[in-house]
Amino acid sequence: MQAVRSLVGGASGPQYLTGDKSAIDAFIDEFDVFLFDCDGVLWSGDHLFPSIPETISMLRERKKQLVFVTNNSTKSRADYKKKFDSMGIQASEEEVFGSSYSAAVYISRILKLPEPKNKVYVLGESGVEQELKSEGVPFCGGTDPLLRREMTPEDFKHVSDGSLLDDDVGIVLTGLDYHPSYIKYALGQAYLRRGAKFLATNIDSTLPSAGTLFPGAGSISAPLIQASGQEPLALGKPSQAMMDAIEGKFQFDRKKACMVGDRMNTDIEFGIKGGLGGTLCVLTGVSKKEEFLASGAKVVPSAYVDALGDLLG
Amino acid sequence: MQAVRSLVGGASGPQYLTGDKSAIDAFIDEFDVFLFDCDGVLWSGDHLFPSIPETISMLRERKKQLVFVTNNSTKSRADYKKKFDSMGIQASEEEVFGSSYSAAVYISRILKLPEPKNKVYVLGESGVEQELKSEGVPFCGGTDPLLRREMTPEDFKHVSDGSLLDDDVGIVLTGLDYHPSYIKYALGQAYLRRGAKFLATNIDSTLPSAGTLFPGAGSISAPLIQASGQEPLALGKPSQAMMDAIEGKFQFDRKKACMVGDRMNTDIEFGIKGGLGGTLCVLTGVSKKEEFLASGAKVVPSAYVDALGDLLG
Repeated sequence: MQAVRSLVGGASGPQYLTGDKSAIDAFIDEFDVFLFDCDGVLWSGDHLFPSIPETISMLRERKKQLVFVTNNSTKSRADYKKKFDSMGIQASEEEVFGSSYSAAVYISRILKLPEPKNKVYVLGESGVEQELKSEGVPFCGGTDPLLRREMTPEDFKHVSDGSLLDDDVGIVLTGLDYHPSYIKYALGQAYLRRGAKFLATNIDSTLPSAGTLFPGAGSISAPLIQASGQEPLALGKPSQAMMDAIEGKFQFDRKKACMVGDRMNTDIEFGIKGGLGGTLCVLTGVSKKEEFLASGAKVVPSAYVDALGDLLG
Repeated sequence: MQAVRSLVGGASGPQYLTGDKSAIDAFIDEFDVFLFDCDGVLWSGDHLFPSIPETISMLRERKKQLVFVTNNSTKSRADYKKKFDSMGIQASEEEVFGSSYSAAVYISRILKLPEPKNKVYVLGESGVEQELKSEGVPFCGGTDPLLRREMTPEDFKHVSDGSLLDDDVGIVLTGLDYHPSYIKYALGQAYLRRGAKFLATNIDSTLPSAGTLFPGAGSISAPLIQASGQEPLALGKPSQAMMDAIEGKFQFDRKKACMVGDRMNTDIEFGIKGGLGGTLCVLTGVSKKEEFLASGAKVVPSAYVDALGDLLG
């Protein structure tokens, strides 16, 4: 039944759980593992949604395995653990799986470029750098203050003659960078032209914050895509490279797992394409119910609630 | 004959003029007006190509009207006049038609939004600002040093509540900006969400400089396109809005005009779509002759030379 309901455009439509205690209990009982998106599900920026710590505790009491899956590349797993602590939500660093970590694992364990040509040129923040460090991957760019400056006429020459480039760079990895600069883009373009692999932590076009939308990782890396004419391999949701890495680490039966999220085109699609037993949409984030209740909707969750705290019944 | 040769994918193929003095003479005689792209045709960055001042003088002696048509939005017509002077090429400010000027003319004479809601939020350099000033169009953003800074947590709130936005902005205009910043993109996205018109001086993905390619205006404005989900109306080549504005200003018979350029997908397409009598490709810039000599080539010039100086014979 669950598998049928979670098919794209499934005819039976999603089940509305809010206020229906027996349906909620049955839904929770179907799964051993819950994968959670964070922003828009547990909180919005610094605002914690009602009853979240209690809901997470309830699931732990029912012996569910929990994984927190986030596309936010600016934070490392350690940063996320701090955020969970500050919000009063019980979670361990090991339960967090971010797109920066996903990218670092892909680079170190799957791509495995031969040293020393495995250095990563980073367009992104310290979250990416920390996860690369944790996997022992060398990198440059990123938060280097030398790249937060004006492009000079000499820079044009030195990018062109290669003297500003690091010979060992074999990968360009883009994430959300709050400090874009022309020289960062110019260097990224030069590395790609030289044949570097092109990866992205994620390609979300927007970042929800403060009640509205801001440029996301996919927008900030768009100049490199345009200038190079190449598309990066994205390692965040809905890329199945991320699902494979999560399953590899946590070892579970996909049919007994449920993805919980607020975005149809990342979270819910991620769960459906990954063949999970179920997907649960919460209406506290980006997607509205009209999106998946409309006839002809392409991505439809198994079930939905107004807010995650509704699972408390 | 000429009209047939300049059709896209014309069967007769482009005429190779280099070294063929009588063919060159006949070609020049066909036209009263020559529209020139600058970078890649007259010079590459600060490097003047051989015999350019003499070629321009020769055309003036043969009573040709000359127009210099550039997509470079960072320079105003006045800036360009200085560049021509420094290169020893005879040209007047009035003969220069840049994409920033094209955008300013479109905004002031065609779009004509009612005051005071006609203010332009600029993502670009001083060339855009100068041309808006010359047309009496109010603007903000651009080279404002307050926007060359880090995005703060307060900025997220103040973009969201609108207190960082200028109420009078009705247009977002993007060009090449050597100083991109997260806050510039966030503001542009907010204005577009509020309903501002979206214009671009040009959407060239790359900028040739120092013998290689750097991010162009189309790449630097890509974050706004991604984040907003909207495409700007481009006012540089190959947009026919620019051709219409040029014809409106200079008043000529299109069949007696020839576009000279180095890029198939901007210059030559611009001339062909504009119904000009001819197009001349020079091989000193981006496009290689293999591009238009290949069978099935989509954009084919009327004629080509190795370098513009070859017209001296």
